[in-house]
Amino acid sequence: MDLLQHIPKRVRIVEVGPRDGLQNEAMVVATEDKVRFVEMLADAGFADIEVSSFVSPKRVPQLADASEVFARLQPRVNVRYSALVPNRKGLERALEAGVRAIALFTAASETFTQKNIGMTIAESLAGFRDLLPDARAARCWVRAYVSTAFVCPYEGEIPPEQVLPVVKALDEMSVDEISVGDTIGYATPDDVARLTEALAPVLPMEKLAYHFHDTRGAALANVLMALQYGIAAFDSSAGGTGGCPFAPGAAGNLATEDLLSLLHGMGIETGVRFEAVGAASRFLERKLGRALTSKALQTYQEDSDD
Amino acid sequence: MDLLQHIPKRVRIVEVGPRDGLQNEAMVVATEDKVRFVEMLADAGFADIEVSSFVSPKRVPQLADASEVFARLQPRVNVRYSALVPNRKGLERALEAGVRAIALFTAASETFTQKNIGMTIAESLAGFRDLLPDARAARCWVRAYVSTAFVCPYEGEIPPEQVLPVVKALDEMSVDEISVGDTIGYATPDDVARLTEALAPVLPMEKLAYHFHDTRGAALANVLMALQYGIAAFDSSAGGTGGCPFAPGAAGNLATEDLLSLLHGMGIETGVRFEAVGAASRFLERKLGRALTSKALQTYQEDSDD
Repeated sequence: MDLLQHIPKRVRIVEVGPRDGLQNEAMVVATEDKVRFVEMLADAGFADIEVSSFVSPKRVPQLADASEVFARLQPRVNVRYSALVPNRKGLERALEAGVRAIALFTAASETFTQKNIGMTIAESLAGFRDLLPDARAARCWVRAYVSTAFVCPYEGEIPPEQVLPVVKALDEMSVDEISVGDTIGYATPDDVARLTEALAPVLPMEKLAYHFHDTRGAALANVLMALQYGIAAFDSSAGGTGGCPFAPGAAGNLATEDLLSLLHGMGIETGVRFEAVGAASRFLERKLGRALTSKALQTYQEDSDD
Repeated sequence: MDLLQHIPKRVRIVEVGPRDGLQNEAMVVATEDKVRFVEMLADAGFADIEVSSFVSPKRVPQLADASEVFARLQPRVNVRYSALVPNRKGLERALEAGVRAIALFTAASETFTQKNIGMTIAESLAGFRDLLPDARAARCWVRAYVSTAFVCPYEGEIPPEQVLPVVKALDEMSVDEISVGDTIGYATPDDVARLTEALAPVLPMEKLAYHFHDTRGAALANVLMALQYGIAAFDSSAGGTGGCPFAPGAAGNLATEDLLSLLHGMGIETGVRFEAVGAASRFLERKLGRALTSKALQTYQEDSDD
């Protein structure tokens, strides 16, 4: 019984801490500290870092300095710095700031999409179709998020049949990557198996990334299930930021340290150094004034060798 | 590709919080509170609860009241209350206290066994052979722990070939169950796959339980791997007690709430009610004066319906 026959030799991690992680933090981090945090992550070896978001500063005050952060970031040949772009206006601001990798945002749940971005899923897809030519003209790399692809906080379980048309529509727009998310962290491995088997016939698997939250501690079990199908791209956030620790049901992203620990323990390469991510998380802890929740991070000591 | 074909329909959880969890807690819990904690766990539906340990009170002061706890516990038809028994003297004390389910302790690492119980693995096995007839005569149910079956804090990686002879020796003694442990929480799913495949030809799988710690957050991924081989018994501790949160490398047991959340989410029956375990953990938190680390426990609110 070879359950591990499709496990990839190498996994690409999209570090989303600076955007998805920080956007939920009440304590506003200074622009220079954000830049330092991103630089530390780049030093750790990530090839993909989601740096900020060009949403309305009123909606997400923490990321109001997106342009400033990009202005201060030194471009690196081996690192793709991306930004979330909610609409045409966001794209314009992003392009102006020199951003050349964008992330679009929609969901598999109609209610969540409505409450989160104030439009229907179809409207959000139409918005993407409208702005993609400009993004292409600027040679942008494009990823699209499909949130609430397993469970919606309003609608409950989301069956794969509800995810498929959204993923297909995005694939037809030729986005470079689709990040399918368990937004509230309630998926279990059987859900991951079911959705992956449903997606496999309609989407080239190398275009798929999974985005798990760790609300109930099952994120790594979900990663394992996906790995067994050969999925080789995962989102995570350094330290496990990404949710309010005081709000039940809104816990953080899968922590990058936990993900690295699992992958490296299984002999899977990532190109990312655990100790350097730990150092970045410790830096962020000092700026946020709170301990981060990653379990593997607790095993990292700052005076240890890198 | 049916990766889930051997997943069991039902899993037996051995709740080890009162013993393995509490023994590492500095704050000594009052006897009556321990009894209350165990009763709450029994109310939650566990069929197996490891209640205490008849080790030297000097070595583990927290569990010095083992006899007293058993004296106060009301026997229940559907619950097996067990105790760790390190040697003949411990067995005598346990039998005197009315205990009829015991757990013996050895390990796969020679160095760990030496440091932990001051003897060789062979000596520990000889000790079991010596006391088992008396335990049998008293109609005791017997489980045996094989600790450091994946990684030893002193010797590093422990290959399956080192675990097999210990497991075989225990099976030849006809113990009822063998709990194979990742004592420091450093195993990854490929290790679990490797060891399970090595054990399958030599041990009836229904005699095997896995005992994972969650130091790096991979315990549930390890459970998933074991489930895929049909393993249907796991140890866990309510709230995730079992290690000092201030000592890197010595983190807690897999939290029962996290395990339940995964299993129930996958449609696997346990007979245990999540909310009732949450209530027991909240009770313990008040007695220990600290928050417990289970992720799924964070989603439990005391005023929620059971």
